[in-house]
Amino acid sequence: MIENARVAVIGVGNNTSALVQGMNLYRRTGSLAGVHRPEIGGLTVGDVDVVAAFALSGAKVGKDLHEAIFAPPNNVPRLGGDLAPSGVVVRRGLTDASGIEEVAAALAGAEVVLYSAPSGRPEVARAYAEAALRAGVAFVNTTADPVARDAALLRRYEEAGLPLIGDDLASQFGVSVVHGTLLRLLEERGLTLTSSYQVNLGGTEDFRNLVANPESKKQSKRNALGAGPVEIAPLGYLPHLGSQKIAHLNIEAQGWAGTAVSLDVRLRVDDPSGAAGVNIDLVRLAAVARRAGRGGWPAEAAAHLKSPPGTAV
Amino acid sequence: MIENARVAVIGVGNNTSALVQGMNLYRRTGSLAGVHRPEIGGLTVGDVDVVAAFALSGAKVGKDLHEAIFAPPNNVPRLGGDLAPSGVVVRRGLTDASGIEEVAAALAGAEVVLYSAPSGRPEVARAYAEAALRAGVAFVNTTADPVARDAALLRRYEEAGLPLIGDDLASQFGVSVVHGTLLRLLEERGLTLTSSYQVNLGGTEDFRNLVANPESKKQSKRNALGAGPVEIAPLGYLPHLGSQKIAHLNIEAQGWAGTAVSLDVRLRVDDPSGAAGVNIDLVRLAAVARRAGRGGWPAEAAAHLKSPPGTAV
Amino acid sequence: MIENARVAVIGVGNNTSALVQGMNLYRRTGSLAGVHRPEIGGLTVGDVDVVAAFALSGAKVGKDLHEAIFAPPNNVPRLGGDLAPSGVVVRRGLTDASGIEEVAAALAGAEVVLYSAPSGRPEVARAYAEAALRAGVAFVNTTADPVARDAALLRRYEEAGLPLIGDDLASQFGVSVVHGTLLRLLEERGLTLTSSYQVNLGGTEDFRNLVANPESKKQSKRNALGAGPVEIAPLGYLPHLGSQKIAHLNIEAQGWAGTAVSLDVRLRVDDPSGAAGVNIDLVRLAAVARRAGRGGWPAEAAAHLKSPPGTAV
Amino acid sequence: MIENARVAVIGVGNNTSALVQGMNLYRRTGSLAGVHRPEIGGLTVGDVDVVAAFALSGAKVGKDLHEAIFAPPNNVPRLGGDLAPSGVVVRRGLTDASGIEEVAAALAGAEVVLYSAPSGRPEVARAYAEAALRAGVAFVNTTADPVARDAALLRRYEEAGLPLIGDDLASQFGVSVVHGTLLRLLEERGLTLTSSYQVNLGGTEDFRNLVANPESKKQSKRNALGAGPVEIAPLGYLPHLGSQKIAHLNIEAQGWAGTAVSLDVRLRVDDPSGAAGVNIDLVRLAAVARRAGRGGWPAEAAAHLKSPPGTAV
Repeated sequence: MIENARVAVIGVGNNTSALVQGMNLYRRTGSLAGVHRPEIGGLTVGDVDVVAAFALSGAKVGKDLHEAIFAPPNNVPRLGGDLAPSGVVVRRGLTDASGIEEVAAALAGAEVVLYSAPSGRPEVARAYAEAALRAGVAFVNTTADPVARDAALLRRYEEAGLPLIGDDLASQFGVSVVHGTLLRLLEERGLTLTSSYQVNLGGTEDFRNLVANPESKKQSKRNALGAGPVEIAPLGYLPHLGSQKIAHLNIEAQGWAGTAVSLDVRLRVDDPSGAAGVNIDLVRLAAVARRAGRGGWPAEAAAHLKSPPGTAV
Repeated sequence: MIENARVAVIGVGNNTSALVQGMNLYRRTGSLAGVHRPEIGGLTVGDVDVVAAFALSGAKVGKDLHEAIFAPPNNVPRLGGDLAPSGVVVRRGLTDASGIEEVAAALAGAEVVLYSAPSGRPEVARAYAEAALRAGVAFVNTTADPVARDAALLRRYEEAGLPLIGDDLASQFGVSVVHGTLLRLLEERGLTLTSSYQVNLGGTEDFRNLVANPESKKQSKRNALGAGPVEIAPLGYLPHLGSQKIAHLNIEAQGWAGTAVSLDVRLRVDDPSGAAGVNIDLVRLAAVARRAGRGGWPAEAAAHLKSPPGTAV
Repeated sequence: MIENARVAVIGVGNNTSALVQGMNLYRRTGSLAGVHRPEIGGLTVGDVDVVAAFALSGAKVGKDLHEAIFAPPNNVPRLGGDLAPSGVVVRRGLTDASGIEEVAAALAGAEVVLYSAPSGRPEVARAYAEAALRAGVAFVNTTADPVARDAALLRRYEEAGLPLIGDDLASQFGVSVVHGTLLRLLEERGLTLTSSYQVNLGGTEDFRNLVANPESKKQSKRNALGAGPVEIAPLGYLPHLGSQKIAHLNIEAQGWAGTAVSLDVRLRVDDPSGAAGVNIDLVRLAAVARRAGRGGWPAEAAAHLKSPPGTAV
Repeated sequence: MIENARVAVIGVGNNTSALVQGMNLYRRTGSLAGVHRPEIGGLTVGDVDVVAAFALSGAKVGKDLHEAIFAPPNNVPRLGGDLAPSGVVVRRGLTDASGIEEVAAALAGAEVVLYSAPSGRPEVARAYAEAALRAGVAFVNTTADPVARDAALLRRYEEAGLPLIGDDLASQFGVSVVHGTLLRLLEERGLTLTSSYQVNLGGTEDFRNLVANPESKKQSKRNALGAGPVEIAPLGYLPHLGSQKIAHLNIEAQGWAGTAVSLDVRLRVDDPSGAAGVNIDLVRLAAVARRAGRGGWPAEAAAHLKSPPGTAV
């Protein structure tokens, strides 16, 4: 029997909460509802163990992971019953490039680092990536900060035979995926795009951070949607939405004989769950690749990322 | 220089109006806005000539085609300036299987029959297909009546080296295409479909006919969408919409950890133009295949059809 | 202290289920969320007792009311905990005008009859109204069948000093209310209505009956919306919706200088709860008016009815 | 026959363009489509003459008004044919409190000043109000800057027998009007508001200014909507929208027994026309009140204003 994947999570925010709660739910119920890939290299969605966790908030550091994931400002609801203690105590994480050695030491038992902290601190992201590299651990960057797009760093991971996956996860069924699919459909069918817009509303702490510092996110969204007359409205932080995300999309185009085609979409998702549904795949891809000694950026991760290596920073 | 394709149109309804107006518009302006395939086997969207036309209405028979396409109940608006007379006078068409020989004789100069009459009279559709076969002309069935799904007939076309394309065109960017694309995306991303519905509203005579006799259309829609919990609400004939079609789609699904995903779409198109944008491709595919002696059903037509051979009748 | 109102319900469908469950919920929790009028003539929403109930279905007749309200095809979910037995056993109701005397006898202890059976059987509705009149009980007709619009019957109620309220309840926050409000707003602001449509989708047995026999409902909707270019699309029975109702509304208008104004609305409600939230008011209005000896049609009911006396049948 | 109202416009932006074009259109066609009040005190929508105009942009100052209204960044399309020269040459306006006397002199022939400059320069707004007062002219402030909410200034207008109307016009059929109406309807019907949001997207220069400096606008919107859990997302400037404005509204509430009610609205309007349709009324109200010697704030203007005297600044 294959051994469970051993993951260290950086950031104990909503995405980590949804990931941890979901894995427990699927283990307990055996359900596969909402699961993208039931098995990757023999690993099911229940075959992943969190062996270490890092956070900065005083409300989380020192707590058991299964308690810390419910500390505010986290607001993913309970997704299915109570959780027994995990046995993993949340450690204090990095705020800059000092302390890399200590983190590397703490990663000893892990196979994969899942970097799931807020976007917007690229130097911290790279510090963790450095620690993972020293510890011989694969790295998954789910944020919009450039890590896998750092060509020198990616080369060092390749040389070490370690996977480096990133940047910026494309949610399991998020706004970019739906918008991009419809724009491609339009093109395939021969319509001419006239204009398009996208409005994103959310209520998580992550979302609040994006609102305050939207540029890296907007660039990443543009990377995901490709060129063309697509406008992205300012992100709207609406606390009452909690962990839900709502998007309004509009597409105006010309069909045969220049006639008007209009498409309006409203999408509502649980945002952290959309991330968790992809992170569970990225983590397993990384573990499997590392076990096989395949270093660098694995092409099969492409569908889950907004800003793969080579796209704009 | 390649010779223009010569087409006989059966039915001088809205779809024919949009086709004829669009071809003239594109010839005049040189624009490619809204054109799916600028060239098929060397034929541009302007390289198609209508050489014969058949209708039943007293308001159309005996008129020049460029006048007949604006006779009520047709309601496609003028899509770009006045049209000079076409020189093609609309002939009286068939109402049953008698008169096949006369039609065959009238098809002498044509390469392709574009069958674009109202759905719901399968015996008439097959009578025209019989006439085309006798005249050595390819046949394109854009209606939901089973013609290409008639295995015996398809075999005879194959043996005669004549293309037979059908059944039921999938509009260039219609409800089935958008709905089907989103359902497939859901599946690809691992979401579990909970429920889905589709509401179709239109204001054309075709639409009125469908409302009165919805069954073959509904089956064809189901063929296009595949299995699954998708409900199709009764069609709504709303005269004020004119040639516009409006659809409301809803998709409810479960993502990671069973969390809810909701997708609501409103689509507005000019319905006859959506048909014309596909008919211009099917007609050129048929002409090119016939010139090359490739009989039977051409696989490259599949993306444009809701009910290809082998699907339920 | 004021005495509770004593009500006999005709029909143990979803509307009765929502009414009975809601009254119990409010009594238990003391909440006022979603309550239109906390008090009418001293009666709170908990101050109403169901003292008799009539139904036709073998799954309901002979059962305790609190059990019968959950029998299929009823599909209102449980709205807050278990219910103790009510002590009211559901009786077999009328299918035609015979049996009026027995019903009148069974109404002895009631002050108000709440007629909440399926629309479409006007002779049955009038038979119950006859029975109520003989028993000296007020009558509330929530269906689209003409009862209060029967001028002779209304006169007899007036003469007997008994309230007669109807016809066809306007839901607490339903499609007609929202659509009518927006159309009136348009007019108040001086816009010129170009076109409007309304699509109604539902999943209850009531809705299925309406789909099969839509005419009286459509007339009642037109009564509620007033004149003007408003089109009502065919009702769509979508079983997966359960007790939810979804409506799509569109309004197109001209503003200053003839510029276009578009309004698209999607409304989702629990349909039986929307009825119950109004029935609780109508029942109390009827009880209070009867106690005060005010017979006939009480004007204060007007806001809750689609087809008051004098409108088209 | 009543004399035309004589108006001086401050600001030659989109709102002025829509006003001027609309008045000419209605004069020429005699149509009343989209007109809120055909007559106010005997004045039709064609009975208003622009006698002076002030602007700051080099592209407008010194031009005939009918040319200046089409200068960029104005982007209201031509709303009905060409305009003959107006004979009114646009003057250079104020940038601070200096120059009040010159403006007062230039207002000599006017009865009403329509202040229609960009929001966000309260001292300029008050300088014009001061000039109007000195010139004995009524003042209409359509911006969110506090003018009528300046109690001392309002008292001086009262004492002078001059009308002072403001602040911040509520568009003829804009987002605040629709949102407010639906929220009030909810309350009237007894539903309990759970949450609500509003997204505003626009493409005019005015909108761009609001995006850069949203606070006074947001406060004014809150004044219009009243208290309650209503969140206003950041304004989105999407240039491709031109003079169109699009809003997405959502309302979540509880109905009977706490059941969920959801309402989603998409509204599309020509924004400057929505302003012009109200300005034509405010200007006529002001002229009529001034002729009658009624000074101060006229109550009949209330329905057209978001921030009347007494609301928060």
